[in-house]
Amino acid sequence: MTAFEYIQTELANLEWRRQPIGLYEPIGYTLSAGGKRLRPSLAVIASDLFDGNRREVLPAALALEVFHNFTLLHDDVMDNAPVRRGRPTVHVRWNQNTAILSGDQMLIEAYKLLSNVTPDKLQPVMWLFNKMATEICEGQQYDVDFENRDDVSIDDYLMMIRLKTSVLLATALRIGALIAGADEDAQMALYNYGIYIGLAFQIQDDILDVYGNPETFGKAIGGDILEGKKTYILLTALRMASAKQKEALLSALSDKSMSPEKKIAYVTALYDELGIRTICEEAMRNYTTMALAELEKLHVSEEKLLILINLAEKLLARKE
Amino acid sequence: MTAFEYIQTELANLEWRRQPIGLYEPIGYTLSAGGKRLRPSLAVIASDLFDGNRREVLPAALALEVFHNFTLLHDDVMDNAPVRRGRPTVHVRWNQNTAILSGDQMLIEAYKLLSNVTPDKLQPVMWLFNKMATEICEGQQYDVDFENRDDVSIDDYLMMIRLKTSVLLATALRIGALIAGADEDAQMALYNYGIYIGLAFQIQDDILDVYGNPETFGKAIGGDILEGKKTYILLTALRMASAKQKEALLSALSDKSMSPEKKIAYVTALYDELGIRTICEEAMRNYTTMALAELEKLHVSEEKLLILINLAEKLLARKE
Repeated sequence: MTAFEYIQTELANLEWRRQPIGLYEPIGYTLSAGGKRLRPSLAVIASDLFDGNRREVLPAALALEVFHNFTLLHDDVMDNAPVRRGRPTVHVRWNQNTAILSGDQMLIEAYKLLSNVTPDKLQPVMWLFNKMATEICEGQQYDVDFENRDDVSIDDYLMMIRLKTSVLLATALRIGALIAGADEDAQMALYNYGIYIGLAFQIQDDILDVYGNPETFGKAIGGDILEGKKTYILLTALRMASAKQKEALLSALSDKSMSPEKKIAYVTALYDELGIRTICEEAMRNYTTMALAELEKLHVSEEKLLILINLAEKLLARKE
Repeated sequence: MTAFEYIQTELANLEWRRQPIGLYEPIGYTLSAGGKRLRPSLAVIASDLFDGNRREVLPAALALEVFHNFTLLHDDVMDNAPVRRGRPTVHVRWNQNTAILSGDQMLIEAYKLLSNVTPDKLQPVMWLFNKMATEICEGQQYDVDFENRDDVSIDDYLMMIRLKTSVLLATALRIGALIAGADEDAQMALYNYGIYIGLAFQIQDDILDVYGNPETFGKAIGGDILEGKKTYILLTALRMASAKQKEALLSALSDKSMSPEKKIAYVTALYDELGIRTICEEAMRNYTTMALAELEKLHVSEEKLLILINLAEKLLARKE
C-alpha cells in the first residue's frame, strides 16, 4: 500500500459522528474534502525509509493532517474565503462561531492523536510538533504584517514562507524519521529536504500565478497581481527594476482605475522586460537541487529514495 | 508561599515580548489581566496534599491557566464581548483576526508548557488534559445549542455546566495529584470534589444574578433574566411552576415591550412566589456537601485539607 493509500484508509476510520454534532460535523466535513494528504504521507514515507512500523508513525501522521486542516479552517475565517477544495468553507456553510469553535476542537483533536505516540518518543515528538505549530502561527502573522509594510525584502519573504509552508513538510518528515528510529543527522537531512522543497513549491506557486496555463492552474491567473501581493516574483522584480521601472510597477499595482485584464497584462509585460520568470525559475531549481543534495546525506538505498526524488522533480514540472 | 503566590510569580516569568509582536502581545495582555488563578492554584494545592514537588507540577499548572485564558479569549470573540476583567477584549483592542490567531497560539503555548511534564507522566497527563479540553469545547457547543432549544431540562443544564466549568477545576486537581504520585482513588476523589464545587459555583452564580447585592456583585443584577438565559434558577422555576405561572413567566421573558426594570422585578416576584431561591440554595449546598464528602476519602490530614474545605465554604458565603 502506498503511504497515501494508507493515510486515506486510516483517515476514513476516524469517527466524527459524535455529540454535539454542531461541534464535530464541521470537522468531518473539513477532513472529508480531500487534498493531497502530503504531510501525513511524508511522515509515513520518512518512516518507510528506515523500515519503521507504520502503526507507530500513524498517530503523529494523522495529527499532522488534522493540524494542517485546522490551520486551513481558521485561515479561511480570517481571509473570509468562500470556497475551499470546491466546497463552501465552514464559516459559510455554518457560521463564523462554528468555524472558530470547531477549529479549536480540531487543534485539540490533533493533540489527542499525537498523545498516542509511543511514550518513549512522545516528549521529543511533542517538542517538534509544538515548535512547528508555533512557527506556522508566526508565519501567518508575518504574512499579515507584510501586507502593510513597504520594505519587505526577499529574505523576509523567504523567512515567512519557510514558517508558513516549509516547516510543516519538514517536521512531518523529521517526526516520521524520529519515530522510525533514525539518528539526528538523518532527521535533519530530511527536515532540510522538506524546508527546501517547501520554498521551491511556494516560488513555483508564485510563478504559476503569473505564467501558469489558465486551463490547468487551479486559480485564476494574475490573482496575486490584482491583490498586489508581495510574492517572490514581485519582490524580485522590485529588486531588479530601475528606479523608473520600479515606479511604473508600483503605480500600476496601486492603480484602482486600471481594468484587471490591463493590469495583469501590463505588470506581466514589465516582468518579461526584466526577465523575472527565468530568475525565479532558477531560484526554484536551486532550492530543488539543495533538497536533493540533502537526500544524498542519508544512508538509504537510491531505490528507497526514489519516492522523494520523484516528488521533487514532479514539483519542478507541475503546471497547476 | 501560597499556591496562588507561587503561580503569580511563575506566570510573571513567562516572556511574551517575542516576535512577531502582533502574535504575542495579545497573549501577554490577556495573561496579565489578573484573575483568580484558581485552576493552576488547584493543581499546586493538590500536589501539596501529597507532598509533591511544586517544580514538577508547575508546567501542567501553567498550561491549565494559559488554556483557560485561551478559552476566554475565543469565547469573547464568539460572544462579541467588549470587556473582560475591566479591560477591552483582544478583538476590540486589536481586531478579530488577531484574537483568533493569538488565541490559537495560546492553545499551542498551553501544550508547549504541558510538554515539559516529566516524561514518565507526560502521556497520562496529556490524556487527561485533552479529555478536559474536548469537554470544554463540547460544553461551549451545548451552551450555544441550548439557546435555540425549548426543551432544555435541568439535567441537560447540569451536564452542560459540568463540561463548561467543572471539568477544568476537576482536571486541574487530578493532574496535580497524579504528578505528585497520588493513587487513582485519591485522584478521583479530588476530581469529583472539583466537579461538585464547579456545579455549586455555577448555581451560586445563577442565584447571585437575581439575588446578589448590586453593590458587590461584579455584573448588573438581572442580566440573565433580560437575556432569557436558561439558568439553573429559570429551569427550576419552569419545572416548579403551574401551567399558568409557566405561561406568565415565559411571556414576560419574551416580552420585548416590557422595560428592563419591570421585567426583572416581575420575573423575580414570580421566582419569590415559587420559593425558587431556597430550592436553588439547597441544591448548591448539596453539591458543596458532596464535594466535602469526597475530601473525606483522602488519606490526608485535616490540617492539609483545610484549604479545600475553606474554598468550598467561602464559595457558599460569597456575595459577588
